Amino acid sequence: MDLVAEIRQGNVRAIARAISLIEDLEPGAESLVDALYPDTGGSLVLGVTGSPGAGKSTLVDRLITLERRRGRKVAVIAVDPSSPFSGGAILGDRLRMQSHATDPGVFIRSMASRGFLGGVAAATGDVIKVLDSAGYQSIFIETIGVGQTEITIVELSDIVLLVLMPGAGDEIQAMKAGVMEIGDVFVINKRDLPGADKLRTEVEYVLSLKSPNPAAGRGIGPAGVAANPIVMTSAFHDEGMRQLQEAIDTYRTEGERSGWLAERRRFRLERELLGMLNRKVHELMDVHIEVSKQLPAWTDSLYRHEARPYALINEQIRKFLRERRSDREN
Amino acid sequence: MDLVAEIRQGNVRAIARAISLIEDLEPGAESLVDALYPDTGGSLVLGVTGSPGAGKSTLVDRLITLERRRGRKVAVIAVDPSSPFSGGAILGDRLRMQSHATDPGVFIRSMASRGFLGGVAAATGDVIKVLDSAGYQSIFIETIGVGQTEITIVELSDIVLLVLMPGAGDEIQAMKAGVMEIGDVFVINKRDLPGADKLRTEVEYVLSLKSPNPAAGRGIGPAGVAANPIVMTSAFHDEGMRQLQEAIDTYRTEGERSGWLAERRRFRLERELLGMLNRKVHELMDVHIEVSKQLPAWTDSLYRHEARPYALINEQIRKFLRERRSDREN
Repeated sequence: MDLVAEIRQGNVRAIARAISLIEDLEPGAESLVDALYPDTGGSLVLGVTGSPGAGKSTLVDRLITLERRRGRKVAVIAVDPSSPFSGGAILGDRLRMQSHATDPGVFIRSMASRGFLGGVAAATGDVIKVLDSAGYQSIFIETIGVGQTEITIVELSDIVLLVLMPGAGDEIQAMKAGVMEIGDVFVINKRDLPGADKLRTEVEYVLSLKSPNPAAGRGIGPAGVAANPIVMTSAFHDEGMRQLQEAIDTYRTEGERSGWLAERRRFRLERELLGMLNRKVHELMDVHIEVSKQLPAWTDSLYRHEARPYALINEQIRKFLRERRSDREN
Repeated sequence: MDLVAEIRQGNVRAIARAISLIEDLEPGAESLVDALYPDTGGSLVLGVTGSPGAGKSTLVDRLITLERRRGRKVAVIAVDPSSPFSGGAILGDRLRMQSHATDPGVFIRSMASRGFLGGVAAATGDVIKVLDSAGYQSIFIETIGVGQTEITIVELSDIVLLVLMPGAGDEIQAMKAGVMEIGDVFVINKRDLPGADKLRTEVEYVLSLKSPNPAAGRGIGPAGVAANPIVMTSAFHDEGMRQLQEAIDTYRTEGERSGWLAERRRFRLERELLGMLNRKVHELMDVHIEVSKQLPAWTDSLYRHEARPYALINEQIRKFLRERRSDREN
């Protein structure tokens, strides 16, 4: 049977093979993704982000259990900007989810960024399509690591869970960091720690300041959704998890009703298309003006002050245009 | 007198005007930056990043005082992904630096990202060149906000100060987040809080795991620099600040001696060149395949499953190539 048919039937080995093709940028990956594309659209993609140490992995682990209990297939993609330091962290996170290791209805995969982060985002977008077409109804994307991956998560998710915990490092600071904007459902985890109620009050306050304009922030605010739910949990003690699941369900239903979810999915597709276009153009530039090969020499001439930045770049752009033209004569 | 000459003489109004030209993407900005470029290279660019609430602004404020005391001109660029929430935070940070507001040897400017973050990075890179050519010996870049700006800081800085504070949200979590890799000089601020010594021990441990391979991580590890200094400070109480200044001085001297600083500056230039090339190519694509105009329609056809992602993008790329060729006939 061919790979496309096997993936459609949910064959785990076929799925794993497809993911490897995507990660390794194999020539067949594009047509595979295109072939699976008509079957996509059935999954809910849940981004999970928030403070390091807030208990994201444990929370996802509990949500998997709840989703499995109502018969849904679940996939988890851990997006990890690979680092000499994070190896241990990944291992720890994976171990925490080991309770699901033998469940055929749960698929867990880490995506490491060996090269540039734009590459992970692209690969993750394609992997989501594979898992979507294979019938995983809930796909969690969890970040391990800093910064840029959080933005990646927002661009890939239908609903973003922002996980906070009480403590000195969070609270007002978290809000100051502007991270509040990216959340849809707010989770105050480790609710048994001191300061949990105070954190809730602060989150409520910051959310009350949130512009009602749906074009604010990232341009895809939840128009028609009354408010961002705040749920207090203790994933470790398995408390508040049903309420969290319900809050997600309600948020999704509201988003479907109001058209907000459709709007966000359009946004996701738009970002993906732009990313794909960028990568293709880079490939072209590499062919025609040998960017990767020439870059060190360009940098050197700038470093030695033998060139000036815009003059250099504008010359290369002109060369790129000429090369494209001369193609016609060949 | 022309703008270039005025900037070279350190005229603050001319500098402010140049920055506005750059931020507003005025046509003259490119040639202005090119004209100033030969005078650049004398500044040390210090990126300041770390946990929100760790006291970065107060720390920079104290460092400005120390730098001024030895007669150095200082500039501060606060890079801020503008957000409906962060307005108050910026104001607070600026107020904390107000002690230097009347000092003509100190230039403070916020750069807001109205559009995409790549835009801020580009503009900030050009603003650094203006300030560098105007004779500011120390240029601090401070982030306000989340994630992606931290990466921006690393790509723009000679030396990155990573500011941590004791407390539940930091410690092991900070290291797990992989943020440790981006620091050169580690500052444990608020050293009077409980847990400061424990945090230091943890930082030392994580740094001891750091790969000695200079190509690890972001590819510009401090080869030849024995170790990343860790300095404990209380910026608020003005304690440990001289030690921090000395640690930065030593790190710089070592970096100059070993060639590591030159290596990092080459890396910075390389990233800048790539960013410039990208922006130019985007402008070209907008002209030839009207990306901005067509993107909503492409997205719609994908959303309705009337197209497939790679087929669509590959068709547009082919069209881009044809359009470039047909130019020749006009």
